[in-house]
Amino acid sequence: MVQGKFDVIHGWAAKKPGIKVEPWSYKPRPIGPHDIEIEIMHSGICGSDLHTLKAEWEKTDYPAIVGHEIVGRVVTKGENVTRFSEGDIVGVGAQVYGCLQDKCSECSRGLDPHCSEAVFTYNEKYPDGEQAQGGYATAVRVDANYAFKIPDAIANGYLEYAPPLMCAGVTTFAPMIRKGVKKGDKVGVVGIGGLGHLAIQFAHALGAEVYAFSHSPNKKQQCLDLGATHFINTSDEEDLKSVHRKLDYLFVTSSSQSNEYNKYMSWMDFGAMIILLALPAGKMSFGAGEFTSSEVLITGSLIGGVDVLQKTLDFAAEHNIRPIIERLPMEKVNDALERVNSGKARYRIVLDNPVSSN
Amino acid sequence: MVQGKFDVIHGWAAKKPGIKVEPWSYKPRPIGPHDIEIEIMHSGICGSDLHTLKAEWEKTDYPAIVGHEIVGRVVTKGENVTRFSEGDIVGVGAQVYGCLQDKCSECSRGLDPHCSEAVFTYNEKYPDGEQAQGGYATAVRVDANYAFKIPDAIANGYLEYAPPLMCAGVTTFAPMIRKGVKKGDKVGVVGIGGLGHLAIQFAHALGAEVYAFSHSPNKKQQCLDLGATHFINTSDEEDLKSVHRKLDYLFVTSSSQSNEYNKYMSWMDFGAMIILLALPAGKMSFGAGEFTSSEVLITGSLIGGVDVLQKTLDFAAEHNIRPIIERLPMEKVNDALERVNSGKARYRIVLDNPVSSN
Repeated sequence: MVQGKFDVIHGWAAKKPGIKVEPWSYKPRPIGPHDIEIEIMHSGICGSDLHTLKAEWEKTDYPAIVGHEIVGRVVTKGENVTRFSEGDIVGVGAQVYGCLQDKCSECSRGLDPHCSEAVFTYNEKYPDGEQAQGGYATAVRVDANYAFKIPDAIANGYLEYAPPLMCAGVTTFAPMIRKGVKKGDKVGVVGIGGLGHLAIQFAHALGAEVYAFSHSPNKKQQCLDLGATHFINTSDEEDLKSVHRKLDYLFVTSSSQSNEYNKYMSWMDFGAMIILLALPAGKMSFGAGEFTSSEVLITGSLIGGVDVLQKTLDFAAEHNIRPIIERLPMEKVNDALERVNSGKARYRIVLDNPVSSN
Repeated sequence: MVQGKFDVIHGWAAKKPGIKVEPWSYKPRPIGPHDIEIEIMHSGICGSDLHTLKAEWEKTDYPAIVGHEIVGRVVTKGENVTRFSEGDIVGVGAQVYGCLQDKCSECSRGLDPHCSEAVFTYNEKYPDGEQAQGGYATAVRVDANYAFKIPDAIANGYLEYAPPLMCAGVTTFAPMIRKGVKKGDKVGVVGIGGLGHLAIQFAHALGAEVYAFSHSPNKKQQCLDLGATHFINTSDEEDLKSVHRKLDYLFVTSSSQSNEYNKYMSWMDFGAMIILLALPAGKMSFGAGEFTSSEVLITGSLIGGVDVLQKTLDFAAEHNIRPIIERLPMEKVNDALERVNSGKARYRIVLDNPVSSN
């Protein structure tokens, strides 16, 4: 068994429901033959982190270190790891293990986030009972299959932009390529935030005509700068009329409870597709006639598996897609969480560890 | 202008909301150059007829003759009609007009039921203000594009089985071919009635492994006889467990208000598709997490356009697909409506006019 560099991992953990975290350390699980140990340089804050800290989704096991937009340097690798060398700059997203076996009906179809053995990056237990802890920390140990090389074009000088690609980025890009978004398609994005501002860029880079929907008219110029062709103020009836039956795809990234799904359906062309990416509380409600009269499809997408994570990074590097971020040192994590919680972050916050060189 | 055979069309009309119809006659619209006049031989009863008679969906214009599973003989044709000759045996479904122009964004994509100029078979007005009246009558005049040749294998000896194919048949078959149901797919059918018992046959003929879902165990043998491989008693927890995450497609044909859509999702494989075909009253309700955790798609389908109606008839003829019907003479239409209304019909009722020869 390989010895790691970190006998103890120091992180920022919640001890009880709420968005306050405090210094806390844990002894990491052993480095298995397929694992790598990563010294964390940058860690993004995702909305899921706050839901978990607040135990809004399901039971949270405290102390909990969250964070699943992780970028860092490989410092130790298990004896069977060949894909990486020590010193490689890699990213880790919301999943740290899937069986990836051909005999697995999920993994064999690129659905490894749904693998029955999937382990997510935090608030999860490995099969051996070890608790998975996230990225607001000095280091993390993960299965090497769930680490991805940060392309040189990003790693060299723009590394701080990489973390949001690991969750927000792949979550928006994966369904675009799976559902076949292509040149000329009319693609709507509802909710201009961490996911939405990346969805605009990915859809634009795929050649789509992008419609950005927001109730905040002050986001208009930024949306256009990111590649949207149209900005639709959802408080403006004339704007809304202009998109009646217009869209081929709609990506719903807003976690607002005021999501108006029935209105969304009216924006969709016959047979078009609404893809839910965020997890707002509350229920949506439909009559069967809304589906038969429009033939619209509604579905959802959960992060993205190993088949698409590297593609996301490579596509972002090739098309110069970068999140808009605010940077804070790791020790300011509580200030950062406050900003995200109050909806002030524009649009993603990245925490820097002291080891980050830029 | 061509003169028709029927100066007056005698039918059975509702005069007010309810399922009671009475003899009533109307002067038919003129036969335009693209129209044909059909002497009705058989007329099926669809659940939509009852919704319309009862004015459950929207305003019904009384007197209303319903019926949109029509089979009969061409007796007159407009001067520009070349597809048919007098004497041809044809069927008419739920739609009697669509523009079918290349410049129409719906018709050009095979979505003519959604054409902005679409006229449905009854309780609709033509652009010229004429009221469309349905098939519980001696005759009907329709655009020739919305009449379809009954294949010889059906017309010769089995004509009474043709009417249910015109609405129930195409409504189930159209989404199967559009969504690509193929050999080996696991296809569920919820609701074993007029639509469902045809859906089983079409899916089976396409090579699918068919799961029939019903809360009526006494329908089991019939479902197996129709081609289902599995019968799932929806009141039996063990049966339900056996289909967890199993299906590739689920066709929901039940118009029961007790439809349990959230349960349906648990039967679906990741990324599988639920297609709503019936229009139960009431709302279905979902959390966004039900979509992201399953990636299931929900959609609906509305009848089927001209591109698929002839295919439905030809496929049914080729694969010997026949509805299970009860036959009653047209003058017993009120008894027939009672049977459908109380859920007693097994599975479709066909009304015979005196002119029908068999």
